Amino acid sequence: MTEGFTDRVVRAVASTGPLCAGIDPSSELLDHWGLDDTPDGLRTFGLSCVEAFAGVVPVVKPQVAFFERMGSAGLAVLEEVLGACRAAGLLAIADAKRGDIGSTMAAYATAWLDPDSPLVADAMTAVAYLGLGALRPAFDLAAAGGKGVIVVVRSSNPEGRALQEARTVAPDGAATGPAVEDLLLDDIAACNRGGLAVAGTVGAVVGATRSPSAFDLSGLGGVILAPGVGAQGGTAEGTAALFAGCAPGTVLPSVSRSLLVAGPDVAALRQAAATECAVLGSALG
Amino acid sequence: MTEGFTDRVVRAVASTGPLCAGIDPSSELLDHWGLDDTPDGLRTFGLSCVEAFAGVVPVVKPQVAFFERMGSAGLAVLEEVLGACRAAGLLAIADAKRGDIGSTMAAYATAWLDPDSPLVADAMTAVAYLGLGALRPAFDLAAAGGKGVIVVVRSSNPEGRALQEARTVAPDGAATGPAVEDLLLDDIAACNRGGLAVAGTVGAVVGATRSPSAFDLSGLGGVILAPGVGAQGGTAEGTAALFAGCAPGTVLPSVSRSLLVAGPDVAALRQAAATECAVLGSALG
Repeated sequence: MTEGFTDRVVRAVASTGPLCAGIDPSSELLDHWGLDDTPDGLRTFGLSCVEAFAGVVPVVKPQVAFFERMGSAGLAVLEEVLGACRAAGLLAIADAKRGDIGSTMAAYATAWLDPDSPLVADAMTAVAYLGLGALRPAFDLAAAGGKGVIVVVRSSNPEGRALQEARTVAPDGAATGPAVEDLLLDDIAACNRGGLAVAGTVGAVVGATRSPSAFDLSGLGGVILAPGVGAQGGTAEGTAALFAGCAPGTVLPSVSRSLLVAGPDVAALRQAAATECAVLGSALG
Repeated sequence: MTEGFTDRVVRAVASTGPLCAGIDPSSELLDHWGLDDTPDGLRTFGLSCVEAFAGVVPVVKPQVAFFERMGSAGLAVLEEVLGACRAAGLLAIADAKRGDIGSTMAAYATAWLDPDSPLVADAMTAVAYLGLGALRPAFDLAAAGGKGVIVVVRSSNPEGRALQEARTVAPDGAATGPAVEDLLLDDIAACNRGGLAVAGTVGAVVGATRSPSAFDLSGLGGVILAPGVGAQGGTAEGTAALFAGCAPGTVLPSVSRSLLVAGPDVAALRQAAATECAVLGSALG
């Protein structure tokens, strides 16, 4: 039986503590590290992150946009970085936020979740503006390989609130249904309860700086990726309170810029990641 | 003064008729064309499309997912195809449906809209689940170069209805604000009326098979990309009725699979595209 993505994350978190460390080679961070804003700079940055994080964090999250901005040469570097993650035993979430329908969605799933793809990761992030059902080809491919799809639901930025808090329309025509974000969480939980090849395939991005919505996150049945800790003001204690009922090891606070400024020294970055993991592990239990 | 994206589209449509021809090298279409499902197959497919469509359609839309599924090698082919579009005088919309926040969104904009990027196109599609305001870095970069960002608003697939028709919450807490899709259309129109370097930078994807929403599309001020004609059951007459009040040349019915099956013969594909353009031009006026 294939081990589901959530179980793989829980197992990794048990040995290191809970943290998803971003790999974000933005122009600003490359400059901070004294690297050129070129594919060579991307490569040095990405491989240094993998070296620093291996063994001290359970999961890393390369931000695809920072590689894609250099076209095919940037994506070739991302292939190398993802390969280095596999070799180092780091679970990798490709932060791609892809979302489309039908055969197009299936093609995105192939790119990031097919074991034969050069870009294969352990999970990808996805966006459900076209409906959670439209992401089904990715869920199916992920489930078959014990991989995950983490759907952006409740983002940490203010501009998303009006859309994500909008109320769906009930059969009688009144806007008294669940909020968009709660509808998506309900649908994700339903996917995780049954209908996919393995349990725990579908996760959610839920900002660590937001107060709780109506949906009880303890029933999600998948991984919660929680951005907003660090640079955006979220704390370990606040994150622990928000996700108090969730199963141990299923909540991954996501930290990027505030951690990556500890580089370029690999030992210093490694120490910063280990400290962050310990602090979060202590708070989240 | 830089010519805005909408004006560029209107000028191109005036000489050929209104059609956005998809370049969708799916496994199925490569097989139909007798091509291998490899980067070489992608290249032959993409360059044949450009040869067939040059001069007979105003705009093409490469579907990024079908290139991305082959990783960096696939994206290198897309760079070639986009270069061939520029050389042929075809406006190209990169159908990427990217959406993120802050410096990440800026990085996606760099990939698809920066004149120095190997992937530069004339416009990109984007998704606003994180709020239309989060896409601002792309709008600004697009406006500076007379390029466009086309935001998915009202999709042609059924799974998106509940989210896109959800009602935003008014200041008094009642869900009596505009529907999500109408909120986005309002915000797009506001961007096009002012605040960006050139008018007509922001467009919308509005399915051709949907009945009208509350927003009056004649006031959008940008390009409308309308999928759903052909394979999904939309007709030229239905499309014309739905977008009757829109400025001439601003509505681009998007046709992909039902057109691309006319290949692999370039002359046959060219003839099919010219016929489709004439039929749509006659209906849309």
